[in-house]
Amino acid sequence: MDPALIYCTACGTRLSHRVPEGDSLTRGICDGCGAIHYRNPRLVVGALAVWEEKVLLCRRAIEPRLGKWTLPAGFMENGETVAAAAARETLEEACARIELGAMFSHFSVPQINQVHVFYQARLLDLDYAPGIESLEVGLFSEADIPWDEIAFHTVKLSLRHYFADRARGSFALHTEDLIWPPR
Amino acid sequence: MDPALIYCTACGTRLSHRVPEGDSLTRGICDGCGAIHYRNPRLVVGALAVWEEKVLLCRRAIEPRLGKWTLPAGFMENGETVAAAAARETLEEACARIELGAMFSHFSVPQINQVHVFYQARLLDLDYAPGIESLEVGLFSEADIPWDEIAFHTVKLSLRHYFADRARGSFALHTEDLIWPPR
Repeated sequence: MDPALIYCTACGTRLSHRVPEGDSLTRGICDGCGAIHYRNPRLVVGALAVWEEKVLLCRRAIEPRLGKWTLPAGFMENGETVAAAAARETLEEACARIELGAMFSHFSVPQINQVHVFYQARLLDLDYAPGIESLEVGLFSEADIPWDEIAFHTVKLSLRHYFADRARGSFALHTEDLIWPPR
Repeated sequence: MDPALIYCTACGTRLSHRVPEGDSLTRGICDGCGAIHYRNPRLVVGALAVWEEKVLLCRRAIEPRLGKWTLPAGFMENGETVAAAAARETLEEACARIELGAMFSHFSVPQINQVHVFYQARLLDLDYAPGIESLEVGLFSEADIPWDEIAFHTVKLSLRHYFADRARGSFALHTEDLIWPPR
């Protein structure tokens, strides 16, 4: 959640909330320095990394959903690419090196102003380990996925799509809009 | 470009710039109210809307690249889906109604902290017109595309991919990382 938007980050003046000229939405406008403050959706990017028939999952050591299982994923940072974010998050959360494949799932989650993107990936070795944000990391076959203990709906959907596509022998990009709470 | 990050938006206190506990990057931290200010890449979303063999382009009435041609596109807003953003931008910039097809191109542009996404789309009627951000709007066949007057590199690449895919008779998602300036 973003901090309340009351003061200008550039000069500290209290903001006015109105629609800028030529715009159609209310923004935080600084009548002191002229700055306009926009807030836009964030990208959460992760990897569905596979070793043989198994998928790499992390058990979360932090809130939200502490103790639940997830694909390694996190907020994309300024200055990086979507693909680099997926690889970085996998390294940070699972200490795992991957070779990225195709973009696999792309979800809009408008209620929380996020877009979630997962890549297919190949785990390069078995030297994975929990990063600081994970309690444990493991490889799970389809039969062993802890479906009732998955942290996020977009992770569960990505896993379901992955196993369904694999069974069909054909992988495609899955784009979906998520209504919250999950149906 | 975001306004300088010097003051807390929630309480107006001057921020400290350091790495929060458990993080690895410097953020703007408020020692007054505890708020942490993150800045992340933004999504720019648009549509490659087609009528028969022609693509809908808009000539920009605003900077940057005033007077140049673009696919209708703009910043995704909080509370909307990626697809809704593409349709909204097409309506705003070209007063055009479309039926969205598949996600077609997905570019990381890390030097400007943006991700650009374009959808294939079908123009539903010919009642298009310049929106407030456009000087003119038109349908262009491949031979008539003003290649030297295209506003943005990701628009040019999307158009090139579109015509190449169409010639091949097969459309695929194109994901690319863009090095700036364009090579």
